[in-house]
Amino acid sequence: MNNTFTKNAVGRMIPAEINGKPVIPFKGVGKHRPEGRKTAPMIATCADYPSDGDKRVAGLKEALVKAGIQNGMTISTHHHFRNGDLVANEVFRIASELGIRDLVWFPSASFPCHEPIIGYMEDGTIHHIEGSMNGPLGRFTSRGKMKGVGVLRSHGGRYQAVQDGDVHIDIAVIAAPTADPFGNANGVTGSSACGLLGFALADSQYADRVIVVTDNLVPFPCIPWQIQGNYVDYVVEMDQIGVPEKIVSGTTQVTKSPDRLYIAELTAQFCEEAGLIREGFSFQAGAGGTSLSIGIYFAEIMRRNGIKARFARGGSNKYLVDMLEEGLVEYILDGQTFDLDGVRSMRDNPRHVNTSPFTSYNYHGKGNFAGIVDIVILGATEVDVNYNANVVTHSDGYLLHGIGGWQNCLFSKNVILPIPLFRDRVPVIRDEVTTICGPGELIDIIVTERGIAINPRRKDLIEKMKGSKLPIKTIGQLKEEAEAICGVPKPAAFTEKVIAAVKWVDGTVIDVVRQVREDA
Amino acid sequence: MNNTFTKNAVGRMIPAEINGKPVIPFKGVGKHRPEGRKTAPMIATCADYPSDGDKRVAGLKEALVKAGIQNGMTISTHHHFRNGDLVANEVFRIASELGIRDLVWFPSASFPCHEPIIGYMEDGTIHHIEGSMNGPLGRFTSRGKMKGVGVLRSHGGRYQAVQDGDVHIDIAVIAAPTADPFGNANGVTGSSACGLLGFALADSQYADRVIVVTDNLVPFPCIPWQIQGNYVDYVVEMDQIGVPEKIVSGTTQVTKSPDRLYIAELTAQFCEEAGLIREGFSFQAGAGGTSLSIGIYFAEIMRRNGIKARFARGGSNKYLVDMLEEGLVEYILDGQTFDLDGVRSMRDNPRHVNTSPFTSYNYHGKGNFAGIVDIVILGATEVDVNYNANVVTHSDGYLLHGIGGWQNCLFSKNVILPIPLFRDRVPVIRDEVTTICGPGELIDIIVTERGIAINPRRKDLIEKMKGSKLPIKTIGQLKEEAEAICGVPKPAAFTEKVIAAVKWVDGTVIDVVRQVREDA
Repeated sequence: MNNTFTKNAVGRMIPAEINGKPVIPFKGVGKHRPEGRKTAPMIATCADYPSDGDKRVAGLKEALVKAGIQNGMTISTHHHFRNGDLVANEVFRIASELGIRDLVWFPSASFPCHEPIIGYMEDGTIHHIEGSMNGPLGRFTSRGKMKGVGVLRSHGGRYQAVQDGDVHIDIAVIAAPTADPFGNANGVTGSSACGLLGFALADSQYADRVIVVTDNLVPFPCIPWQIQGNYVDYVVEMDQIGVPEKIVSGTTQVTKSPDRLYIAELTAQFCEEAGLIREGFSFQAGAGGTSLSIGIYFAEIMRRNGIKARFARGGSNKYLVDMLEEGLVEYILDGQTFDLDGVRSMRDNPRHVNTSPFTSYNYHGKGNFAGIVDIVILGATEVDVNYNANVVTHSDGYLLHGIGGWQNCLFSKNVILPIPLFRDRVPVIRDEVTTICGPGELIDIIVTERGIAINPRRKDLIEKMKGSKLPIKTIGQLKEEAEAICGVPKPAAFTEKVIAAVKWVDGTVIDVVRQVREDA
Repeated sequence: MNNTFTKNAVGRMIPAEINGKPVIPFKGVGKHRPEGRKTAPMIATCADYPSDGDKRVAGLKEALVKAGIQNGMTISTHHHFRNGDLVANEVFRIASELGIRDLVWFPSASFPCHEPIIGYMEDGTIHHIEGSMNGPLGRFTSRGKMKGVGVLRSHGGRYQAVQDGDVHIDIAVIAAPTADPFGNANGVTGSSACGLLGFALADSQYADRVIVVTDNLVPFPCIPWQIQGNYVDYVVEMDQIGVPEKIVSGTTQVTKSPDRLYIAELTAQFCEEAGLIREGFSFQAGAGGTSLSIGIYFAEIMRRNGIKARFARGGSNKYLVDMLEEGLVEYILDGQTFDLDGVRSMRDNPRHVNTSPFTSYNYHGKGNFAGIVDIVILGATEVDVNYNANVVTHSDGYLLHGIGGWQNCLFSKNVILPIPLFRDRVPVIRDEVTTICGPGELIDIIVTERGIAINPRRKDLIEKMKGSKLPIKTIGQLKEEAEAICGVPKPAAFTEKVIAAVKWVDGTVIDVVRQVREDA
């Protein structure tokens, strides 16, 4: 194993290998040029599949055995069921029962409901996770207890990794709220409806074996087919694949915190004054309480000025669907639905369109949608004085969040981070972030309850905001104000052990996360 | 060049090479096992594409030059505009003007409107065509005038060939009735609406460079995106890409010929008596006059017996759309729309679903839709006593038709060929067909105005029809009746020169077509 470290383009030390595979350190935005060809699945033949199209097998265990499950394989699942997923745990329960060892779990995201996975890491069934390690899995990993090194990717980076062959999926297990015996599947109907299945697209296209698991089997054809049965090997029926009330469990409460409301208002005012809210514009807000409030402010500005947005990006929720139905937004291009209004709208409204990480975020494509979006509102756990930002670790060093689409969205024309100046008396703006997830050159505006900082690279926005009554400050001023109140924060204490790598959208490594020193 | 010939599994002599490339002779249905991996396109990067998603260039010539057009390249187009296509001819006009030579034209089908292509074959711009050579192009080819050898594939075989890397598309030109600057495109809206763009799917996924040409540019996003902009390199606006009245020019006249009407009635009666028209069944009829009549008889039977079809396969037309709207058919799964009712229905009715050769016909997939269909009604120019059938040449030897989806549809559960016993006093049932396009083992029933022949392999159907009042005969009897009226037909006269190869759905060669002896 090669233990040397190299400093990457944002100054972070990157090991030569992760999980025994060589890695490429981050070179700068747009600087890494991929070489070669996409990965190519084996050519299949209809001669090997039932001529009547009926691919059902008796159960998930049989499907996994038929798919040839073996030690060391990579098994993928998707996260459209969010905290209500019942399938991923079941896959590894069966694998453990079969005595399979050292699997790699490659989810599109993980949730607290996946805490049982810790047991399968402890009993040797799972070697490591490539995907977000939210909550309990993150703590377990941050304590150095996972056998391998976690690999975090953005939604687009996950598609890129599969497409480029960086990750080879041996078996994809795609939980589907509705499916037919041929394997066509969707997320808009059935008792476990989750809206769409876009996060499983790469898995269906590139995995060696694809298993569709459903609790709502319909006769062929399952319409719409968000996942195409032509990629599917086996279809399995299960009693229940998800807990409905936990599937659509996005944060769909508008914030009641006066500080958060003020940040939301400032953000919307900034966008209006800077001329970003104009006829035919586009935006992506998100599902947090502050983001929801920003959406509501946007709607007010649009109504007042008679402005229509050409499209909004989801995650969708009631508020965005209302804007669509009111005609304030012509289209929702949606990557995941966060509530039942989102699911219903996607099912019934042709202007509410399901997307995938391929269309929206894959950096190794001929363009993607991210750069087309005018305004994107994102969160961060920390931002540094050079606008670099962190979304995966907290200031105490624990890895508690995935990247999601965050890195991909940084390619939007105007990237705004509305964040509180401090959380639990810990300043959010720092000299250096604990983990760099996004380079500062892509982050344009920081909005806090004490003022707005514009990245000096955005001379156009600075010019436009001259004479504004909004509290425009430098990021240094904001940091000083926070430190005047909370004091200068102590950096997190780590051991030398790398417990996770953070990939950039092009597959290079932008930072690593180390084991937390629990004695510190 | 290797000039040896080998006899294939249906007894036809197949050359070792075609256009300098080795070929595999047909081995029997389901006998050829593909090896290796699908072809893999180069990995692209967003860094090479406009960050705002605007891929427009000034014109088709500029796009072709930017795409790197060179001698010997393969250029593809699709045929959704049918006889109203204005784009393919323009591509080769520009190529000729640029002095490019020896191109391969790889259309999904050709039509009489493409007669100008003959000029580009004569001036050396085009070396040969891989795709149907209908009408004038077929006569030109049958006279031995094309520089290379034509290669005929079914719609599914075309997808297979691209997917497997048998055909490498250098530049795909996708004419789109509606598109946005990112390259998202569809066929359901715009003045040149043709319904869908499924025949261009493989081209978009696998070509090195993809050019979308449109006469109806809309702001991003173009919804629906039947072609995804993430595969597209350049977008070009043209004044007009198709002649609307020639785009939707399917044969949508119900036959008035008493013989044809009788054949249609016999076919429908046979299906009813054999129990093939049952609750939840599926069928694919087609657009010819006889097929339309069969559809109308089916509708009557279904109404009378209170039967609903789960789905019908398109090509769609007014009659099929009426059945959908009446509720006789739950879904139309459609590969091409033949009239404006088809276009409208596909645009507005979520139960009228666009499909592609990938979903419907690709034999080198994990199954496809063809085998799921209960009844398929197909045509043929000739059938032999072993039920082998021909769809590409006439009995005079001229290559005048493409294969279309015909070979793919042979995998349906019940394949019925309603054909006249003779055409222009030439018997249609022969000892040997001029060109074998489909092996007899896949063809179940021949319906003529003088009787119905059931393939002896279908003991189940023979059993079911015992005691029927329908004129069930052997195929030998039918041949004798025809010859009693018209005499024994003379086989077509050919030179030794192979002018086209007919591929089977798995990429093997099932037959070749030779130059017609015009002195014969």
